[in-house]
Formats: sequence, structure tokens, C-alpha cells
Amino acid sequence: MVFKKITLIGTSDESFEDAVDDAIERAETTLENVHWVEVDELGVEVATADHREYQAEVTIAFQLED
Amino acid sequence: MVFKKITLIGTSDESFEDAVDDAIERAETTLENVHWVEVDELGVEVATADHREYQAEVTIAFQLED
Amino acid sequence: MVFKKITLIGTSDESFEDAVDDAIERAETTLENVHWVEVDELGVEVATADHREYQAEVTIAFQLED
Amino acid sequence: MVFKKITLIGTSDESFEDAVDDAIERAETTLENVHWVEVDELGVEVATADHREYQAEVTIAFQLED
Amino acid sequence: MVFKKITLIGTSDESFEDAVDDAIERAETTLENVHWVEVDELGVEVATADHREYQAEVTIAFQLED
Amino acid sequence: MVFKKITLIGTSDESFEDAVDDAIERAETTLENVHWVEVDELGVEVATADHREYQAEVTIAFQLED
Amino acid sequence: MVFKKITLIGTSDESFEDAVDDAIERAETTLENVHWVEVDELGVEVATADHREYQAEVTIAFQLED
Amino acid sequence: MVFKKITLIGTSDESFEDAVDDAIERAETTLENVHWVEVDELGVEVATADHREYQAEVTIAFQLED
Amino acid sequence: MVFKKITLIGTSDESFEDAVDDAIERAETTLENVHWVEVDELGVEVATADHREYQAEVTIAFQLED
Amino acid sequence: MVFKKITLIGTSDESFEDAVDDAIERAETTLENVHWVEVDELGVEVATADHREYQAEVTIAFQLED
Amino acid sequence: MVFKKITLIGTSDESFEDAVDDAIERAETTLENVHWVEVDELGVEVATADHREYQAEVTIAFQLED
Amino acid sequence: MVFKKITLIGTSDESFEDAVDDAIERAETTLENVHWVEVDELGVEVATADHREYQAEVTIAFQLED
Repeated sequence: MVFKKITLIGTSDESFEDAVDDAIERAETTLENVHWVEVDELGVEVATADHREYQAEVTIAFQLED
Repeated sequence: MVFKKITLIGTSDESFEDAVDDAIERAETTLENVHWVEVDELGVEVATADHREYQAEVTIAFQLED
Repeated sequence: MVFKKITLIGTSDESFEDAVDDAIERAETTLENVHWVEVDELGVEVATADHREYQAEVTIAFQLED
Repeated sequence: MVFKKITLIGTSDESFEDAVDDAIERAETTLENVHWVEVDELGVEVATADHREYQAEVTIAFQLED
Repeated sequence: MVFKKITLIGTSDESFEDAVDDAIERAETTLENVHWVEVDELGVEVATADHREYQAEVTIAFQLED
Repeated sequence: MVFKKITLIGTSDESFEDAVDDAIERAETTLENVHWVEVDELGVEVATADHREYQAEVTIAFQLED
Repeated sequence: MVFKKITLIGTSDESFEDAVDDAIERAETTLENVHWVEVDELGVEVATADHREYQAEVTIAFQLED
Repeated sequence: MVFKKITLIGTSDESFEDAVDDAIERAETTLENVHWVEVDELGVEVATADHREYQAEVTIAFQLED
Repeated sequence: MVFKKITLIGTSDESFEDAVDDAIERAETTLENVHWVEVDELGVEVATADHREYQAEVTIAFQLED
Repeated sequence: MVFKKITLIGTSDESFEDAVDDAIERAETTLENVHWVEVDELGVEVATADHREYQAEVTIAFQLED
Repeated sequence: MVFKKITLIGTSDESFEDAVDDAIERAETTLENVHWVEVDELGVEVATADHREYQAEVTIAFQLED
Repeated sequence: MVFKKITLIGTSDESFEDAVDDAIERAETTLENVHWVEVDELGVEVATADHREYQAEVTIAFQLED
């Protein structure tokens, strides 16, 4: 049993939870066996976004097929 | 005056704040003088939970009685 | 083009997002070109607050005028 | 569901795995629901031990009863 | 000459070396030029495994083809 | 031989050494085999103390009985 | 909007900037929307290179297509 | 309620406590509501000082006025 | 003698040294006694810049007047 | 009583323990009073070694003679 | 101009300053151009010392002769 | 095969690469088998230097003779 980890940054106008979910949902469009997620960094983009944009950098761990 | 720190992980289906509160409430069932709480790590359990389970690892500081 | 970074701690009775927003709004009362915000630490004050007080220490990056 | 973490240092004359197991077994004499273990530091004591003593500092996570 | 790094978690019932080797062998089923491996974290899964399961999170560096 | 580590914060109006000693002495009221102490953080409380209060967060390692 | 991060190591006989650019250019042969690059580590390979080889480990962030 | 943090380095021929106090006293000549101080680094300047000069880099947290 | 530290991010189309110098020169337009500079992070902005823009986040230490 | 610390990297075809021992034995050919050893990093060299070569970077602490 | 850094641990029954000075004085018996000293870690040895023994791990920077 | 690591700080009026090379060249006047170099910190000395002096703290790894 081997897991792989990748790093994504999700975004949301609403909350950090939504930003995390945004990244998880994008991961699950191409990955099947997501097991857990670690939040690496939280931030807010102000200058180049229309609204304050909450951002969450997450590490996503999924099981590789044999 | 001496403080002690312990580390708990709270969980919630709703939000990171609820996961933090979950840990604080569990601590206050046995500890009287909780002073402050530091969030060490945030994460999401996906594989072994029915829903996405938000998790918060926190350090809880409380004052020891003399 | 030069940016400067300062460190603020915002507080809220409601959520970590509100605590982050609290710090950003205080910064924007005196600074014009806030570009982005990094969340350094999250915590909860229990002993000296009426309610649980969510706290967010953030680094705020803004562009200096030439 | 709330987890607690404690920090132990196990020792062994044989290997780092044995030092880790030493700490886990000590934990399980008093704790029922050990879930996972993180290795924080590895070392070797030379001066005050008869043999080289392998040491493993580990964080042990267990589920608190409701 | 450009290298790429990926992060895998290998597992073993026997030892940390086996857990590291497990990850390397999985990597070499799809990658040709693995150069070196860094051990990021060691751990033990207790609750959801039949035996104690040694785990090694490793970063694997391999050379990209031109 | 297994050691356990706990985290305390000692305080003193005089010096950082006194704040460290304060934590050690509190630990030794309930623990017998304290072996060594690591200083994790030093600080000064200004707002809620009558004097400047030196604080030392320390990790205390003691040997568990068999 | 979701970003992904990957880690590359670029090399150059001339300078750290060239080593960073080497990694960016390799990334842009297969990725379209590179947004920013963080320098994780700088080093110099002496033993196995003809010249001193400057090396830059970088994290490259690019926007995923919807 | 918003706090700001600044970083100062105090110096003393006598002790680390004096070096920390030196920085606090300088801060209080221009700031009113200093709440707490974190010690970031301790050092000693030998070459360019007449005596050994103890140095303390500290982060000072103070409350901003509304 | 008390020093203060501030954090700036300088930018350059040419090199990391120029990005560092950019921040130092901006600091010296308003500060007199800059003593030393620590490089905290290096990066490259690709998406929102016309050229690749080298960036250097630096901490600048200067002596406060008595 | 003063201790000095040096950093060595030991290697082995067999195990991480052997790699650590390799470094300790090399140190003891020239140093008399080795007291303890801290493991800083573990890795595996794949490309330039005949076998997988386990590597252990260790810090070795020994007492200086008066 | 090239500096070298070495790591020593000084000890004292009195204070952390004395433990730091102990290491500096030992260094100056064999090194001429000590420039500055960084404190890496503070601790207290309890079990194997007659008194509480304050310990300071320091990095000592000295200028190499040309 | 055992490697040793030492820490040097090189300086240059021109660039960070020159400062790194300065340290490597000094190392190679007394060491034969330098294998690789890691850059630990970059900085600029302003106050006590005639020009801005770029500084690079590097860790140099060399193979010990058997």
C-alpha cells in the first residue's frame, strides 16, 4: 500500500472551509482514493480579486492503485 | 503561577471553529482554568469518515492549582 | 516596486475569517495598497475574554509609494 | 470524537523500530485506543549506557472516551 | 538537467527500511531515473491496520528527460 | 526504560532562570524521576501582571516507572 | 480557481538565477499557466560535475484548467 | 480589538533579562499599550563591542487604538 | 543601543542581488542607520509581470536613535 | 565542562542503524568522549551507488578536555 | 574574508549567561578572532548533575586567517 | 564512506554566487574531497563594510579519508 501526496491551492469568496473543499473537489475529479488532507497555509488575496478571496494551500494524500 | 499545556484533536462535520470548540469543551470537562488555545494544525479526514470531517489539533494552556 | 509587510492580530467572537477580516480592515484605515495577507497563527483566548475570542495573527503586504 | 497526544521516548539496544515499539507498548499498558504514532526524533545514547542505546521520541495519539 | 521531486508514503509490517523501499519500488514502476530519496517523516499506524504498520513518507528525486 | 515529556510554563518577577526553576519545582511536587529540561520559549507578560513577569515554557523529561 | 504546485531542481554553470530559469523553462514546456515560483533551496554540486554546478530547488505554482 | 507586533533588538553588558528590558523600555517611549513580549533569539556580540554585549531579539505586541 | 527590524520585498528584472538592493535603497530613503540585511525568501513572479520579475523578501535591521 | 558537536554522514547497504553506527565508529577513531548522537536526516542514494545506500546525517556530541 | 562556525555547549550552576560565557571562554583558548555568538538552545540537566546544571548550546563565529 | 559537514560564511562585493565561491575556495585550501554545498542563509552587511558586502552562509560536505 503506497500513498502519494500532491499540493493544491483552493479559493473561495466565503470561508477557509470552502477554499479547502474547492481543492478537494478538484482533486476528486481525477483521483479516486483520497484519504486525508493537511492544511499547509491560509491566506487572503486582496489586490487582484474582486472580493476578498480566501485561499487554502492543502496537501492531499491518496492511495495509489497496485 | 505555573501553566501546563496539553495537545488535543477535535473534530466536526461543520467547520474548523467547531473542531476547535470540540477540543476545548472536552478539555473543560476535566480542567478548570483553561486560559488560551493555540491551533497547531488543521486537516480533513476523507476516507474513514461518513462526511468530510474537519479536524483541528490544538494546544490547550491551563493554570495549575498551587 | 517595493512591498512592506506588517504583522497584526485581529479578533472576533464569531469565526477565524472574521478575525482575519478585522485585521485587514484595521490595516486599510491607514494603508492604501494592501495586496495580500498570510495567516501566521490561529488561536482562542478563553480566560480574559467574555466569550471565546477567536484570534488570527496575519502578515499584511502592501505596496509602498515611490 | 476527540484525540489526545502524548510524548514518550522509548529505548532499545537493537534498533529504532524496537525503541518505537518500546514506547508504544508502555503506552498501551495504560491507554486503550491508540490510533497512530509519529516519530519526532531519533538518537543514540553512548556515554551513560552499557551498549549503544537507540532512542526514539514519539508522539502517541489515542482516542478519548466520551 | 532538471530534476523533479514527488512525495510518496510507503508501508511495511517489518521495518522503516522496508517502508522506504516500498515507496522507492512503487516509484520505479513508472519512473526511470530515480537519483536520491529523502526521508521526511516516520510513523506507525495502529488502529486501522491488522499489525503495527511502519510508515515512511519520502521525497523521491528523479531526472526529467530533455 | 521509557521517558515521558510534559510541557509547563513557569513565571518569575526576577529572571528567566527563576521562571525555569519555578516550572521544575512544580513538576517535582508530583514527579519523581525528572532527568532533563528543554527551554522551548521565553517571554515577558506586561499587560496583566503587576510587574514585568518573565515566563519560560519548558519541556520536562522524566523516567516512567516499570 | 485551483492552483497546483510542483517541485523542480534546475541547474546552471553560471548563476542561481539561471538555475531558477532552467527549472521554469522546463516547466513551461508542459504547463501553460505558471503564475509564480518560490525558491526552496540553493546549492552547489562539486564532486560529480565538470564545473561547479549551481542548483536551485523551486516550487512552481500553476493554475489548473476548469 | 487589534494588536500590532514589531521586532526590536535590545542590548546589555549584564544579562539577557537586561537586554530584553532594554528593548521593552525603548518601545514604551513611543507605544502605550504593550501587552506581551516574545523572545525570538539570544546572542552575544564579541568583536565590535568593548565588553561582551548580550543581545535579545524580541517581538513586542501592543494594542492599537480604535 | 536598540535596533529595529522591518520586512520589505524588493523586485528586479535582472537578478536577486538587484531585488535585494532595491529593497535596501527604498529603506535608506527614510532610515539612516541601516546595519545589516537578512534574505528571508526568494521568488519569481511570472503571471502578472511583463518579464520574469525576481523578488527578494528581506529583513532590514537599523539602529534606533536614543 | 564543555561539549562540542560535529556533523557526519554515515552510509550502509543494510539499514539506517548501520549508517548511524558507521558515523559513530568513524568519530570514535579520533574522539574519546562521545556522549550522545542526534539523527538529523535519513536518506537513500540510488543513482551513484551500486546498491541502495542508506544514509544517516548525525550530530555527534563529545566532551572537550579541560 | 571568510568566517567559520562551530557549535559548543557550555554549562554552569549559576545562570544561562554563565553557561554561554563558559562556551565562549573555551573557544577563545584555541581561537583568536571570535566575532559573534548565537544561542541555539537552553536546557537544564537534573538527573546526572549534583546541582541543577544550566546548559547553553551556542554557535560561535570566528574569522579565518587568510 | 563517511562525510563531514562544516559551516563557513563567504563574502563578496559583487554577488551571492561570488560569496558562495569564496567559501568553497577557502575550504578547498585545506580539504580535498568537497562533494556538495548547501546554502543556509544569504545576507548583506551594510554598516561595517565599505561597500555593501554580500554574505553567504554555506554548509560544505566533504568525504573523510578511511
